[in-house]
Amino acid sequence: MTLQAEKGHFYAVGIGPGAPDLITLRAARILEAADALVAPRSERSGESLALRIAAAHVHGQEVLVHAYPMIRDQASTRASWAQVADWVAMRMEAGQAVAQLTLGDPLLYSTSAYLLECLLERVPAERLHVVPGISAMQAAAAAFGAPLTVQEDRLTLMPATDLAAVARALDGCETLVLYKVGGRLPALRALLAERGLLDQARLGCAVEQAGREVLYRDLGEPVDAALGYLSVVLVRCGHRPWREA
Amino acid sequence: MTLQAEKGHFYAVGIGPGAPDLITLRAARILEAADALVAPRSERSGESLALRIAAAHVHGQEVLVHAYPMIRDQASTRASWAQVADWVAMRMEAGQAVAQLTLGDPLLYSTSAYLLECLLERVPAERLHVVPGISAMQAAAAAFGAPLTVQEDRLTLMPATDLAAVARALDGCETLVLYKVGGRLPALRALLAERGLLDQARLGCAVEQAGREVLYRDLGEPVDAALGYLSVVLVRCGHRPWREA
Repeated sequence: MTLQAEKGHFYAVGIGPGAPDLITLRAARILEAADALVAPRSERSGESLALRIAAAHVHGQEVLVHAYPMIRDQASTRASWAQVADWVAMRMEAGQAVAQLTLGDPLLYSTSAYLLECLLERVPAERLHVVPGISAMQAAAAAFGAPLTVQEDRLTLMPATDLAAVARALDGCETLVLYKVGGRLPALRALLAERGLLDQARLGCAVEQAGREVLYRDLGEPVDAALGYLSVVLVRCGHRPWREA
Repeated sequence: MTLQAEKGHFYAVGIGPGAPDLITLRAARILEAADALVAPRSERSGESLALRIAAAHVHGQEVLVHAYPMIRDQASTRASWAQVADWVAMRMEAGQAVAQLTLGDPLLYSTSAYLLECLLERVPAERLHVVPGISAMQAAAAAFGAPLTVQEDRLTLMPATDLAAVARALDGCETLVLYKVGGRLPALRALLAERGLLDQARLGCAVEQAGREVLYRDLGEPVDAALGYLSVVLVRCGHRPWREA
């Protein structure tokens, strides 16, 4: 069960949350063997964090660093990914192995979903592969050393964009993980306070990113509201033990 | 942000779903540098799958291979882990670095939760560390090449032990991931058929375990009921697009 980078194939490669050593051996080998790489850069900073994290595995491959629109518009997102897919498909047809670097896991809130969808219209499905990566949720839980789920617990992972949906989710799981908290951090804290859950909530910001990581073990403490960006919030709202046999 | 195995410290190390190359660089280095290792073995087979997966990183360390009771009893589970914790704490106090190998991720339905809890009563919390690992859910999704979540999707992860709770969960998320399907696979298929979701459900059995992996892309096909064991079921029950800005 080891995966080799094959000529004419594409790999969506998860490189984990930020620490270069949280890359899997498979991801490292696929990146090293690829002929061409696709990596995102932030429109704000202009820099590719993904390329920096995976720097040890990048050595002379052709690299397409592309900005992706940070606006939430389906049509412009699709148009932007269609261009990247053309670039990738052309190289696959020329017999190259192509890999896309993506932070975290390629199948959890990742841009790989768009690129894979566009590539499916251009190349056979059996030439498309995914290499899983450590997600921000796992890195945050590990940083706190706190179990996400044991025994019969249910975990729900969702964006914090709709606080009414967040409130409903709190009733249907034992651990709630929130991405995309952003500017809603104060409103989220108010909701958690109402439920008596503030001291069961933890926040990890830029977890495993050198020099940027901030951890709050207890959202009851005063928290810099700007930390909502790049954050994961973990709420332990209950526990479901084994039912007696 | 690289983690070194320190003397007198403990590491709960996720080694991923089964393929030796889905171990992270950090996990590999911690295991290699550890003085003593703890690994589970199945009571049924008597073998330690974890040790076999991580064989490339095990070379002469002292190894405690322990059986853990497969019965769901809180008291005997705790007693069993207290013994392992004594073994680990004694070596930590003697200045050794100790690592526990665990399949998947140490904080998702893992025995590491019990060992960490017992160790917290014996050694200072700052000597306990967790190295995240690729979970079975991520490996299964990667094998199918199908996104778990995009845009505003909610994902719920839970054991399939309580099918009434599974039915409720289907109404509150866009992707449902079920562990511990076991003998309930026929009843689960009946529930999914009722909801018209059978062809949106996939099953991965022993994903990334050499020679044992079985994948069903569509639970509408006839499925060997015995495959419920070691399986992950992924149900795509909806999609929540971005709300228009």
